[in-house]
Amino acid sequence: MEIKQIAEELVSLVREGKNKEAKEKFYSADIISIEGNGDKVEGIAAVYEKSNAWMSQIAEVHSASVTDPLVAADHFAIGIKMDITYKNGYRAVLDEIGVYDVNDGKIVAEQFFFKS
Amino acid sequence: MEIKQIAEELVSLVREGKNKEAKEKFYSADIISIEGNGDKVEGIAAVYEKSNAWMSQIAEVHSASVTDPLVAADHFAIGIKMDITYKNGYRAVLDEIGVYDVNDGKIVAEQFFFKS
Repeated sequence: MEIKQIAEELVSLVREGKNKEAKEKFYSADIISIEGNGDKVEGIAAVYEKSNAWMSQIAEVHSASVTDPLVAADHFAIGIKMDITYKNGYRAVLDEIGVYDVNDGKIVAEQFFFKS
Repeated sequence: MEIKQIAEELVSLVREGKNKEAKEKFYSADIISIEGNGDKVEGIAAVYEKSNAWMSQIAEVHSASVTDPLVAADHFAIGIKMDITYKNGYRAVLDEIGVYDVNDGKIVAEQFFFKS
C-alpha cells in the first residue's frame, strides 16, 4: 500500500472515531511515539497504554476533526483538533500536528507538535 | 501577525526563491533547527551557515515546490520538494516535511522529516 493510501485511510478511520482500528491496521510493532514535550515511548504495547491512560481521563469529547494529510516521500502530516472536557472538569482545545514515518507499509514513528 | 499569516507569507517567499528573506523576516535569533537524522543546530548564525554550506554544493535546481501550509495552534507544516543536481554530479529528488514552531510572531524551531 502506498503512503498516500495509508495516510488517507488512517485519516478516514480516525474521522470515524476508529483510532484503535487505525493503530491495529497500520502501526508497526516497533513504533516510536514522541510527544510535543519530547516524551518518547517505544513499541505498540506502550503506545496503547499511553493512549488508554489518556482516554481514561476524558469525560466528554465535544468535537474532533482531522485535516487531509500532507504527504512527502515517506512521511505524512495531519492537523488534529479536539475539544474535550477531562474528568477533573478542565476543558481543553487541543490543536496539534502529527507527523508519521512510514516504512514497508507500516507506521514506524509518530511525533506530535503542540503548544507547550 | 497571526501564525496563519506567517505560514502563508513564508510559503509565498520560498515560492519566489526568497529563502533568505523568509529567514530574515521570521526566524528568531535563537531558532533551533533539527534535521531528519536528528542533527541539531541552534541560533540564526548556525542556521545560515548550514543553509549556505548546503547551497554551495548545488550545481542546478531543476524544480522546487512547496505545499500550502497545514496550521495548528502554534505550529505549521509544509511539504517541500526539490529536484537538484549537486556539484559532484549526483541528482537527487528531495521530498520532505518541515514543521515550524511559532512564538510571539517568530519561528523559534524548525524540524525536517525526510527519507533516511
